[in-house]
Amino acid sequence: MQSRYFTLTDYPEGVPSREIFKLESQELPDLAHGEVRIKNRWLSVDPYMRGRMSGVRTYVPPFELGQPMDGGAIGEVIESNDEKLKVGDRVSHMGGWRDVAQVSGESVFKLPDHDVPEQAYLGVLGMPGMTAWTGLNQIAECRAGDNVLVSAASGAVGSLVVQLAKAKGCHVVGIAGSAHKLAWLESIGVEPVTYKERTAKELGDAIALASPEGIDVYFENVGGTCLEAALDHLNEGARIAVCGMITSYNERQEGVGPGNLFQIVARRARMQGFIVADHWSNYGYFLNDVAPQVAKGTFDYQETVEEGLERTPDAFLALFEGGNTGKMLVKLND
Amino acid sequence: MQSRYFTLTDYPEGVPSREIFKLESQELPDLAHGEVRIKNRWLSVDPYMRGRMSGVRTYVPPFELGQPMDGGAIGEVIESNDEKLKVGDRVSHMGGWRDVAQVSGESVFKLPDHDVPEQAYLGVLGMPGMTAWTGLNQIAECRAGDNVLVSAASGAVGSLVVQLAKAKGCHVVGIAGSAHKLAWLESIGVEPVTYKERTAKELGDAIALASPEGIDVYFENVGGTCLEAALDHLNEGARIAVCGMITSYNERQEGVGPGNLFQIVARRARMQGFIVADHWSNYGYFLNDVAPQVAKGTFDYQETVEEGLERTPDAFLALFEGGNTGKMLVKLND
Repeated sequence: MQSRYFTLTDYPEGVPSREIFKLESQELPDLAHGEVRIKNRWLSVDPYMRGRMSGVRTYVPPFELGQPMDGGAIGEVIESNDEKLKVGDRVSHMGGWRDVAQVSGESVFKLPDHDVPEQAYLGVLGMPGMTAWTGLNQIAECRAGDNVLVSAASGAVGSLVVQLAKAKGCHVVGIAGSAHKLAWLESIGVEPVTYKERTAKELGDAIALASPEGIDVYFENVGGTCLEAALDHLNEGARIAVCGMITSYNERQEGVGPGNLFQIVARRARMQGFIVADHWSNYGYFLNDVAPQVAKGTFDYQETVEEGLERTPDAFLALFEGGNTGKMLVKLND
Repeated sequence: MQSRYFTLTDYPEGVPSREIFKLESQELPDLAHGEVRIKNRWLSVDPYMRGRMSGVRTYVPPFELGQPMDGGAIGEVIESNDEKLKVGDRVSHMGGWRDVAQVSGESVFKLPDHDVPEQAYLGVLGMPGMTAWTGLNQIAECRAGDNVLVSAASGAVGSLVVQLAKAKGCHVVGIAGSAHKLAWLESIGVEPVTYKERTAKELGDAIALASPEGIDVYFENVGGTCLEAALDHLNEGARIAVCGMITSYNERQEGVGPGNLFQIVARRARMQGFIVADHWSNYGYFLNDVAPQVAKGTFDYQETVEEGLERTPDAFLALFEGGNTGKMLVKLND
C-alpha cells in the first residue's frame, strides 16, 4: 500500500514559501509487531509547527529535511498488529501530514465514546482544547470573577479560552482582527477589541474601555503589540499564561519586545510560559471536564476546513495570515 | 528645634539634575501625643526613589513638590511622647532626607540587640537585605544546587543575593560593570561577568561560559541587555524574580524590551515581579535567619558612604552612574 506524505526541502527564513513543501509517496513495509496502519480522515495544522521548521531544537524536535513531516491526525485503523486495537477503531495519533500512517499502537489514542464529531479530538477536545484548559486553569489560576484578556481570541486555542473563562463566570475581553471574528466574539458574550491599525497605546486604551476593572488574567498567544498593551492594564497580582507569541515565529531577526516590561514589577505580576505536552498527564481530567460540555453543545467551537491532502501546506500557511477562525483542519477525501 | 530637609522643585525627565533638590529648613512644632523626635545618623538612598519623582502613582506614592522628601533612616530618639519609646532608643524609620525627624511612634521600628552596626538595618538587615531574601527564596524558590544568575550583582540588593545563594549551595554568576566590582565578586566565590561594551549576544555567551549548566534562577535588577542575554540561557522551568529594571527608570521614552521573550515559553519559565513591601510581614523571619549570620561576619556586605546631609542628592544620583558598591548611605555629622 502507498502512503503519500509531505517533506520539507529546506528550512525557511521568515514566512515559509509554498515551494518548500513537497508531496512524496512510498510503498509501506509490512506491519511490524505492535504496529497499526491508519487511514487518516483529518489532519491538524498548528502554529507550533513553524518552530519545527528550523534545524534548531527548541521544545519539540525539528522536522528533518526530506523525511515525512508529522503532526496530529484522526483516522481509522485499517490493519492492526496490536492486540488492543482492531480494524475500524477510530484513533487520534501523531502520524499526520500524510494519507496513510503506519505507527506503533502504543502511540495511538483510541477515541472515547462521547457524542462528538471525531475531528473534535484535534480541536476542542485535542491539543488546542487541552492547551486552553491548562493555561487558563493551571498556569493562570483563573478564578470566577476574574477579568480575563485573551489575544488571538478567535483562534483554535483562544476561542476555547474565552468560552472556558465565560463558563467560569469571568468578564472576558478578546483581541482579534477581522470584523467577522469580532462579531463572533460579541455573539458569545465576549467584549471584542480589534488590534488592527492600532499602536500599543491605542490598543491599550481600547482594552481599558472594554475591561474598566483592569486585567487579572491574560492568556497570551500573540506577543508584540498585544503584550505591550496588556502590560499597561494589569491589576496587582495579575497572571499571564504565555502559550505562544505567533508574531515572532516568522521574524528573520529578533524582534523588539515590549518597552514596558517593568509593569511586571509595578503590578507584582507573574508571567509564565507553558507547553501543553508537559501537562499531558492531565488529559483524562480535561476530557472528563470538557467532553460532556462539548457533547451538550455548550461550546461554540469553530473550524476552518481545507479539503484534500494536497492542500495541507496551504492550510498551514493560512494560519499566519489570519485565514482561520477556530481550529484549522484538513479533511482527506476517501 | 530646626529640621533641615530636602524638597523636590520639579519632576525630572530622564536623569534628574542636581538642581531640582532644594535644602530647606523649618522650626518643628511641639510633639503631639504618640510622636517621637529623632536625630538621624544614617540616611538611605535607593533606586526605587526615582519612581517617586514623577506625578504618576506607581507602587509607591510620588514625592510631592515642595514637601519634605522621605525614605529610610536610622537615628536616636531625642524626645518622646510615645510610651513604648524612650530617649536614647535607636530606631529605624521612614523620615529620611532630613536631619531631625518628627514622626508617629507607631511608624518606628526599635532596633533589636543583634551585635551589628546600626546602619546594617538600612542595608543587609533592612530593605535591600529583605528584598534579596524574599526574591531569592519566596519568588524564585531557589533551591540548593540551582544555577543562579544575578544582575547588578555588586549592588545593595545583588551583593546580598549572591551571598545568600552561595550560602544555600548554589553555583552563582554575577553580572557587574567595573573591574573592582568584578574582583569583589570573584573574591567571594561568584563567577564574575561584565556587561560592559557587550551586546546581548556577547553577554549571553559569557554567561554560558560562566554557567555551563544553564540558568535555573535569575534575579533581575537591571532589564535591557541583561534580561535578553539571560533569556537565551534559561533551563527548563527557570524562575526569574524581577526586583527592578534600573535601565528603564530614567528613560524619557519607553525603551525596547527583549526580542526573545518567546524563550519564556520555550523554557517553560516563570517571570514574576515583586515589591518587598508586600512581604513585610515576613521581616521577623528574615531577621531571625540573617541577623545572626551578619553578626558572625558570614556576609561581606559593602557600603558606600557619603558624609553630610548636603550630599544626600549626590549620593542618590551616584546610584545611576555605578558610583556605589553595595548599599549607598549618607552619614550625618553630629
